[in-house]
Amino acid sequence: MLTLYYSKGTSALAPHILLEEVGADYALKEVPIDTGAQAQPAFQQVNPKGRVPALKAPEGVITENPAILGYIAAVHRDAQMLPETPFDRARAEAFNAYLCATVHVAFAHMARGARWTDDTDAQAALKPKVADNLAECAEVIEKHLLKGPWAMGDRYTYCDPYLFLLPRWMAKAGVEIAPYPRLAAHHAAMQARPATLAALAVHQV
Amino acid sequence: MLTLYYSKGTSALAPHILLEEVGADYALKEVPIDTGAQAQPAFQQVNPKGRVPALKAPEGVITENPAILGYIAAVHRDAQMLPETPFDRARAEAFNAYLCATVHVAFAHMARGARWTDDTDAQAALKPKVADNLAECAEVIEKHLLKGPWAMGDRYTYCDPYLFLLPRWMAKAGVEIAPYPRLAAHHAAMQARPATLAALAVHQV
Repeated sequence: MLTLYYSKGTSALAPHILLEEVGADYALKEVPIDTGAQAQPAFQQVNPKGRVPALKAPEGVITENPAILGYIAAVHRDAQMLPETPFDRARAEAFNAYLCATVHVAFAHMARGARWTDDTDAQAALKPKVADNLAECAEVIEKHLLKGPWAMGDRYTYCDPYLFLLPRWMAKAGVEIAPYPRLAAHHAAMQARPATLAALAVHQV
Repeated sequence: MLTLYYSKGTSALAPHILLEEVGADYALKEVPIDTGAQAQPAFQQVNPKGRVPALKAPEGVITENPAILGYIAAVHRDAQMLPETPFDRARAEAFNAYLCATVHVAFAHMARGARWTDDTDAQAALKPKVADNLAECAEVIEKHLLKGPWAMGDRYTYCDPYLFLLPRWMAKAGVEIAPYPRLAAHHAAMQARPATLAALAVHQV
């Protein structure tokens, strides 16, 4: 049994979709970040970093989306969500690392500027570039990384639910998806899958 | 044969150390970022994201430190740098993802603020919190993530050369290492290894 600690409107949507895709035996535990629950002792015992998602597995807690997605894929090997060769796996890991460390970080400068400065004027000054940065990320993904129809090519992998977050971040930052037809097609294909819809039904408020 | 594209004073030091540790057959190619070479067409063909490190493998180019480190470990399996079980691997991936997406990003706000704002006043306003953020990361690692003596416990893994960067970032940001004795011991142990010294000899200017 796996337990996903999630908050609505966060990147926990990605592992939630993957849990649905692989048919996992899992439970959900909501951490309402609008009340600051992620910083309370109860959740700090789960993840001292105070962030969602976190995944409680039989062996212990796993944090960070690339690792959580990788673990879900690895323990549901029949679902074939994890590329097998070292090179293919590295390409997939690079894709998820880019989403985690560049794309998500670019988006986080819209509402989470307090992570990097206590100066409220500077926090406000971080917002205007978010749209440009997300557009640049979308361009890199469209031109170089998204093979199509799925992130890694013909087969849906553990990268796809993570990529599903990008157009949602773009919409919040006012970046049109139309200039990125491969990304738009990916998003539409994701939205047609029962696993995506099942997860979205929980996350939408 | 592997080729590591690196720049001095960057996080390319981590995969460089790992290449030395595993006894890889590799070549180095310097991308002098002080002349903007990473944005020139010659390197854009290697990595359209314009960042080092990048690793040219027989099958193609791999980017992003977690993926590069994972690939080097995977194709030198005799060196046992990669945890084998899904949970142990996920813990290692979470460790590297934290270094990549939180710790390195915290440090990048010292000199790379232009990534997130064009406002030079705001760029300056990002610097003061870098030391606090790196201290907080060091605390999380010291208390919760660094098992000791190596990142994952008794055995050196592909997480260790990446963790080696943190005290270097802390030093640049003026954060003392003394309050973090496990991290300090890790850094000293890393500095005693011939592989680390061989890589440092190239990177030090």
